[in-house]
Amino acid sequence: KAKVPSPTETERCIESLIAVFQKYAGKDGYSYTLSKTEFLNFMNTELAAFTKNQKDPGVLDRMMKKLDLNSDGQLDFQEFLNLIGGMAVACHESFLKAAHPHKRM
Amino acid sequence: KAKVPSPTETERCIESLIAVFQKYAGKDGYSYTLSKTEFLNFMNTELAAFTKNQKDPGVLDRMMKKLDLNSDGQLDFQEFLNLIGGMAVACHESFLKAAHPHKRM
Repeated sequence: KAKVPSPTETERCIESLIAVFQKYAGKDGYSYTLSKTEFLNFMNTELAAFTKNQKDPGVLDRMMKKLDLNSDGQLDFQEFLNLIGGMAVACHESFLKAAHPHKRM
Repeated sequence: KAKVPSPTETERCIESLIAVFQKYAGKDGYSYTLSKTEFLNFMNTELAAFTKNQKDPGVLDRMMKKLDLNSDGQLDFQEFLNLIGGMAVACHESFLKAAHPHKRM
């Protein structure tokens, strides 16, 4: 066995989420949080497939307000993870519905 | 531009987390949740580097109890994401401390 084994899929994901957060949070101002501009930048780049599909132009504003639990106008890493989690849950539910359209979840 | 662009890093992560959850949740019993056995299997495989470092043998038992918010003895996808989020926050904080050992976070 190698002394440093290659990371598992889960470890790689955790590292990626940290790297993505740091990349966008580092673009302006305080580099440990996402400002509104950085959040919009993230949504329009990393989650563009979702963002482009939204017909309501106010959806990102409302998402930012809802995610910003302490209302400081910034998303910290935990608040960012709640966004990823919300996206993942919505995705997972739509997969389950597609796989078992007549089953109650 | 291709009609189906390759997924972004964030999209790939969301897909991976769903796939990892489904892989472990599907091993026994009800396939939409992680039983205690499936949780231990996941922790000892995907997060083995963390799990092996724990000196207290009761740590996984306590984690399962803490994560199982509705105390049904199973972790659903949202409860699983809280685990990943907790790991990611702990990782992120230790990176920040390593990078800036004298800075208060």
